[in-house]
Amino acid sequence: MSTENLVKNALGRWVPTEVNSVAQIPYLGVGKYKPEGRIHGRFIPSNSDYPSDGNKEVATIKEALVKAGIKDGMTISTHHHFRNGDLLANIVFDCAAELGVKNLRWFPSASFPVHKHLIQYLEDGTIHHIEGSMNGPLGRYTSEGKMKGIAVLRSHGGRYQAVQDGEVKIDIALIAAACADTFGNANGLNGSANSGSLGFALADSQFAEKVIVVTDTVVAFPCIPWQIQGNNVDFVVKVDKIGIPEEIVSGTTRITNSPDRLLIAEMTAKFCDVTGIIREGFSFQAGAGGTALAVSDYFAKIMRAKKIKARFARGGSNKYLVEMLQEGLVDYILDGQTFDLDGVTSLRVNKNHVSTSPFTSYNYHGKGNFADLVDVVILGATEIDVNFNANVASHSDGVLLHGIGGWQNCLFSKTVILPVPLFRDRIPVLVDEVTTICGPGELIDVVVTERGIAINPLRTDLIEKARNSDLPIRTIQELKDEAERICGRPDKPKFKDNIVAVIKWVDGTIIDAVRQIDND
Amino acid sequence: MSTENLVKNALGRWVPTEVNSVAQIPYLGVGKYKPEGRIHGRFIPSNSDYPSDGNKEVATIKEALVKAGIKDGMTISTHHHFRNGDLLANIVFDCAAELGVKNLRWFPSASFPVHKHLIQYLEDGTIHHIEGSMNGPLGRYTSEGKMKGIAVLRSHGGRYQAVQDGEVKIDIALIAAACADTFGNANGLNGSANSGSLGFALADSQFAEKVIVVTDTVVAFPCIPWQIQGNNVDFVVKVDKIGIPEEIVSGTTRITNSPDRLLIAEMTAKFCDVTGIIREGFSFQAGAGGTALAVSDYFAKIMRAKKIKARFARGGSNKYLVEMLQEGLVDYILDGQTFDLDGVTSLRVNKNHVSTSPFTSYNYHGKGNFADLVDVVILGATEIDVNFNANVASHSDGVLLHGIGGWQNCLFSKTVILPVPLFRDRIPVLVDEVTTICGPGELIDVVVTERGIAINPLRTDLIEKARNSDLPIRTIQELKDEAERICGRPDKPKFKDNIVAVIKWVDGTIIDAVRQIDND
Repeated sequence: MSTENLVKNALGRWVPTEVNSVAQIPYLGVGKYKPEGRIHGRFIPSNSDYPSDGNKEVATIKEALVKAGIKDGMTISTHHHFRNGDLLANIVFDCAAELGVKNLRWFPSASFPVHKHLIQYLEDGTIHHIEGSMNGPLGRYTSEGKMKGIAVLRSHGGRYQAVQDGEVKIDIALIAAACADTFGNANGLNGSANSGSLGFALADSQFAEKVIVVTDTVVAFPCIPWQIQGNNVDFVVKVDKIGIPEEIVSGTTRITNSPDRLLIAEMTAKFCDVTGIIREGFSFQAGAGGTALAVSDYFAKIMRAKKIKARFARGGSNKYLVEMLQEGLVDYILDGQTFDLDGVTSLRVNKNHVSTSPFTSYNYHGKGNFADLVDVVILGATEIDVNFNANVASHSDGVLLHGIGGWQNCLFSKTVILPVPLFRDRIPVLVDEVTTICGPGELIDVVVTERGIAINPLRTDLIEKARNSDLPIRTIQELKDEAERICGRPDKPKFKDNIVAVIKWVDGTIIDAVRQIDND
Repeated sequence: MSTENLVKNALGRWVPTEVNSVAQIPYLGVGKYKPEGRIHGRFIPSNSDYPSDGNKEVATIKEALVKAGIKDGMTISTHHHFRNGDLLANIVFDCAAELGVKNLRWFPSASFPVHKHLIQYLEDGTIHHIEGSMNGPLGRYTSEGKMKGIAVLRSHGGRYQAVQDGEVKIDIALIAAACADTFGNANGLNGSANSGSLGFALADSQFAEKVIVVTDTVVAFPCIPWQIQGNNVDFVVKVDKIGIPEEIVSGTTRITNSPDRLLIAEMTAKFCDVTGIIREGFSFQAGAGGTALAVSDYFAKIMRAKKIKARFARGGSNKYLVEMLQEGLVDYILDGQTFDLDGVTSLRVNKNHVSTSPFTSYNYHGKGNFADLVDVVILGATEIDVNFNANVASHSDGVLLHGIGGWQNCLFSKTVILPVPLFRDRIPVLVDEVTTICGPGELIDVVVTERGIAINPLRTDLIEKARNSDLPIRTIQELKDEAERICGRPDKPKFKDNIVAVIKWVDGTIIDAVRQIDND
């Protein structure tokens, strides 16, 4: 590997000093990098340049893009509240291509399989590169070295941080909202295609030079609640349909029925019980994956048995969490992303189901955030190494297939537990060294597998509390060895030298680089 | 009058080119000044500098000020949600004086008679000058030329604009909140001393370098709703009592029982009816003064009779407006300032009673604001001249006694009506030239007096609609002449040359200057 323009970061990873012609800072360690400078501000607007009747409606997305001054090299942002049911991003770049605009930077909060439509625009130069979490085909395209620029992957909090700090200056933001008034106040709750929260679009609405709200349901002013504030909006476009809510649930939002996964979930909940994490007024966050949902379900059983309740649960909300709120097992859901229609309905009607944003929950360059306050968070990983470093972005074959989401941000919770199977498709999840480090081991406290639980040696308190339980506590090395005894030691993926993506840490430094896969 | 360092603005007023050593722009006309530059940003913070458990509580206000780095020459902001029941500002400057800090700029959203306590700190140099609306003794102190610096009066929207644009950089903001968690999430709703909305503190929470929340009621995280977001807060201080809610209502929040004022209110409502302003789905804003409340009451009667409702009313909320919401006469109250405890309760329990802020409602350097969208606004004035220019800041004796509040911002509503008595204490309200111009006549549409209604000649549409009514439509000159026939022509107040205060227009330019009164 050439080390020209590379530097070794605090985790020993070689990362570039420049990405897409922008100078970079290598990861320095948790809490080590101190930002300088001031929060970014867009140009000061004046009411005198906006319609005096407050009506900002324009006829088409293309017209709005033209009025917003779209031109070569701009940064265009979109949001993933509809996940694989997003209809907007593809149309935006169809318009850009029709207008002959080139070398755009697409800055989505995440991309999904539906966005493989955009590969043609990466090919023809309409889009130069993508900065945003990758789920599926665009990740593979990137891993194969086909994208002109280098992809930049950020957590949800890292995305807010990058925008707030002026690291990414958005020229035009497009926001798909279920419901809006013509002034631009908008929400994801009261239309016909509801996505629930719109928190991922908050930074864009605050900091982008031009903001376009796209909706299929226009209501009379005021659109209440205004998750997006019209005072930040330049144009409103009405279309026939803004998204497919049924596709939000794609993939991962049902409780697992795999016996192994259920065992892992039960062991996780039991661990939290034994160590005193589950107590009156505690707080938790579990994702929307099958195992995480099962953990929540076991939490509920324990809480019922002990007659205690949680002060709050952080969402991604889903029907299981909503049922816990309704049952009184949690006082509040603090919801960053609505994963199903039960979540949407609850967010609309239940005042204890509260929208959050990457600003409140995840931004590391704030005066604290909510993730710090959560007692226990249940997360996934594609790989975990013997130093507890974990990977969520690439598969064990080295291909970039997943977004980071809020995963990195959640590592700052008081206890971080990764319930994972010991192996997937006969490939061990526990390894000597992860392919891509997305989170440093010092922040990962517990790994729960179907064959035992490993506690990070840094957490002597948890080790002490779990000592006299009947839980199968083992070292991570023991678990890794067992995985290798069963599956053998797989070949490492092969890479070329060139960097195709970088993984940002929550503070904007580079924690790892992803290289082109070598299929030769 | 010396014209050194003075310039004539677009209204022909001589205004200073520099105030407190900062260069100024003269008023250029409505919508003429275009801002340059970017929205201000405070220094980028890092979570690593905040407590990892999210607990930001410190023991005393003084300790918080010291931790916030208070020093000579800083700008300290407070808010007037408790109006004359504010307890915080006086304590803050008591602490500053004890610490020996000098030359502070006090930047309240408004000052009230209770703050005459601070005159000692203007005398001893703790406070250099005040920038904020003046109600009462501090205004008189300023008018008498006793303050070291020049006072700067801004509207609520102008205050947001000044902070947003970096014209006023707040070093330390103090926010009195009825209820908060130790992370700093706060509201004015769920404590023992409730002020309702906290919208006037929004800009300060977003832009001040250090933000201190002071409360007497600490709740477990999360404090819901978070009108102030803990992510913007540095320190939380618990005190015994943060304010006297009963003093919020001081002065002006009961319907007038003066027959003349009731007549003016009735004529105003009738004018709105005759000209078609009151129609299904219209919107209105009336202040909390006795006449304005009476106008709302007449509006309600007309709406009941016509079986129509308003889409929204802008508050200052009060029990009369709350009753209209409960009765279904308005769909929404968009509330910037809660004037009584009925307003507080409604804001807490009624989801159609929505908190607003100077950002949503009044900021002229935004992408539009809500004031533009209001069909009719009912405002007061101390003087109105034959060019429809109006004064709200000084009395006819030239003394600065009132704040601007949202008054200037509301002038951008579709129809602006000033119901005023023709004279007060035998001093005509209608004059040849107002002592202090707070709003340009081109934005003031109608003046309603007990002896007739004057419509601004620019509003040919309203003149046409009112033509065949039985309303006493007259010219403003006729009304002024009548006032002078009755009262005589009063002597003009006498002033010295030196400027003691400036009145900012909504865009940060100077619309007028106030000079020291000459009592010799």
